Amino acid sequence: MLHALIMAGGGGTRFWPRSRQSKPKQFLKLAGDRSLLQQAMERIGAMVTPARTWIITGASYAVETARQLPNLPNERIIGEPCGRDTAACIGLGAALAARGDAEAVMLVMPADHVIEPAQEFRRAAHVAEQLVLENPNALVTFGIVPAFAATGYGYIERGVALAQRQGVSIYRVGSFREKPHVELAEQYAASGQHFWNSGIFVWRAATILGELRRNQPALADAVERIAAAWDTPRRDEVLTKEYAGLGRISIDYAVMEKAAEVLVVQAPFQWDDVGSWLALERRHPQDAHDNTVLANHLGIDTHHCVVVGDEQKLIATLGVSDLIIIQDGDAILVAHREEEGNIKKIVEQLKARRLEKHL
Amino acid sequence: MLHALIMAGGGGTRFWPRSRQSKPKQFLKLAGDRSLLQQAMERIGAMVTPARTWIITGASYAVETARQLPNLPNERIIGEPCGRDTAACIGLGAALAARGDAEAVMLVMPADHVIEPAQEFRRAAHVAEQLVLENPNALVTFGIVPAFAATGYGYIERGVALAQRQGVSIYRVGSFREKPHVELAEQYAASGQHFWNSGIFVWRAATILGELRRNQPALADAVERIAAAWDTPRRDEVLTKEYAGLGRISIDYAVMEKAAEVLVVQAPFQWDDVGSWLALERRHPQDAHDNTVLANHLGIDTHHCVVVGDEQKLIATLGVSDLIIIQDGDAILVAHREEEGNIKKIVEQLKARRLEKHL
Repeated sequence: MLHALIMAGGGGTRFWPRSRQSKPKQFLKLAGDRSLLQQAMERIGAMVTPARTWIITGASYAVETARQLPNLPNERIIGEPCGRDTAACIGLGAALAARGDAEAVMLVMPADHVIEPAQEFRRAAHVAEQLVLENPNALVTFGIVPAFAATGYGYIERGVALAQRQGVSIYRVGSFREKPHVELAEQYAASGQHFWNSGIFVWRAATILGELRRNQPALADAVERIAAAWDTPRRDEVLTKEYAGLGRISIDYAVMEKAAEVLVVQAPFQWDDVGSWLALERRHPQDAHDNTVLANHLGIDTHHCVVVGDEQKLIATLGVSDLIIIQDGDAILVAHREEEGNIKKIVEQLKARRLEKHL
Repeated sequence: MLHALIMAGGGGTRFWPRSRQSKPKQFLKLAGDRSLLQQAMERIGAMVTPARTWIITGASYAVETARQLPNLPNERIIGEPCGRDTAACIGLGAALAARGDAEAVMLVMPADHVIEPAQEFRRAAHVAEQLVLENPNALVTFGIVPAFAATGYGYIERGVALAQRQGVSIYRVGSFREKPHVELAEQYAASGQHFWNSGIFVWRAATILGELRRNQPALADAVERIAAAWDTPRRDEVLTKEYAGLGRISIDYAVMEKAAEVLVVQAPFQWDDVGSWLALERRHPQDAHDNTVLANHLGIDTHHCVVVGDEQKLIATLGVSDLIIIQDGDAILVAHREEEGNIKKIVEQLKARRLEKHL
């Protein structure tokens, strides 16, 4: 049976002030009138029932997750007592899925990406599921054809072409490449041989657990102990204790870069990780002066800005260019667009100055 | 007896969004923890009792005036049914003051200037009062030694020096000069012969009424009719009817430029009409990066900005320079500092787009 694991653990800082500690990116409506988490759930709705869908999120986000996904059974929302990166999250999800279904196949994806159209995503996911059913040892990842020379993503160098199925190309993975510097990113983007690593995977739960056991035996033991205690009164106690002892490691470092049977499916869909405020320019149309406006905005002589605000507020701009202007609740950000990578510094400073109420 | 007329009619647009239609500049705390109107009232408190002080404001501002000046008797707050510039306002004030005191001397001043120290202002006002008592026909105006080549003010060219009293220099007025272009402003500022016209005056009520009768007989008739009806049930009706029929004309055009006996007292005080957001830079200290901050502000790589906001809000800035950033209630303004003169365009656009709720 196909299960889904939606990883919704992020507490990102790049969307401050809209994204606060209490409401990180996956809960925001950054593309359309549904949150990214809600869109992720809808995307797989036609493939996986809610009863076989797991959302792993931060413990403090469990309530918001439940509020946004009223059709999801409560027991399918798992709150991590602390963040331990993707290897722990995936290990836990796999151990829980395998408990009730030894043949479980898992579709793993982050909650905070934009993927369109959903139908194409499901087509590719079906192809990946078939690959895994035919080749039980396979770890299948989804590669995105680079749209530009991004330095913010990891890359997958493709190996030999294996097949085309339902119009979807399948390759063996040649190698995983870390986030490159600019010149290397340009080479990758131009090579025709590299994909962006989307962080979306399909595999058998038993297979990924085996790989974790081989590469991260302590982690594998821990998630097995959590799964064993899951239906007992000790569930929370064991989860908290075991999780605290885990190291922070991504599934790429922990497993993918070392595994033998890794395949990549070339995504037939559009993908955007909506990594920062400027990503809104890709998701929304611009006005005649190149502004991207998601606000009640009055602009005079205003060019190439991103303006976001609450509906009942007015943001007026006069004689300004290249700014990111964000109003959300009790906070306002005005940043030069070239500084978007430094918005996290604002969040750090707020912590340092004990202005947590604005986080 | 000395009376005071504080002109509080302004509905200026240059302080949007803090200054709204419902709360223009004189009601704002732009210098210190008291509004400009409250500061004006305090300034004259040691010279004139509330019972001889008149505030003439817009009818819609009468309530806010009363709220800000709880010690002022209600009947001393006069709401103009419509704005008719300073000649009408001063004529009305003079007619009302003369009703109860034929020898009334009036100190006339706008409500929305910063004047410091108040003691020096009172010293100059006392000198002016003495001049008027000795020379009943005199119209005394206050001239400000130019601090820079301002193009936004009218100028007074001084004539012959008359005297020094209590350290205050008194001149006959040579001529009034309209707001100059830049080159002329530079000549005036360098000449040593020109003052800024502060719009502050001292004269006998009977004298200014006589001058109005000679130069603006219809206006003089109208304010006399209003004064005659003041203690009757027809007060409001007559005020509304007569005011509507008045022309818009300033006291400078109507009287000062034509009168024979016009003197100018050189102000021994600091004066600032706080004409726009950038004026705050003169009224408040700057931080290490030349920012003027009246807000809960977190700035990283932020230079030469003016940042104003409500206390409970946070304004964060990152990598920006030369901006005016104002948050007030439901509105935010982000403007380049060189555009401060165009903030009125925002207000015009709000009217044109029927966004009156933000005015």
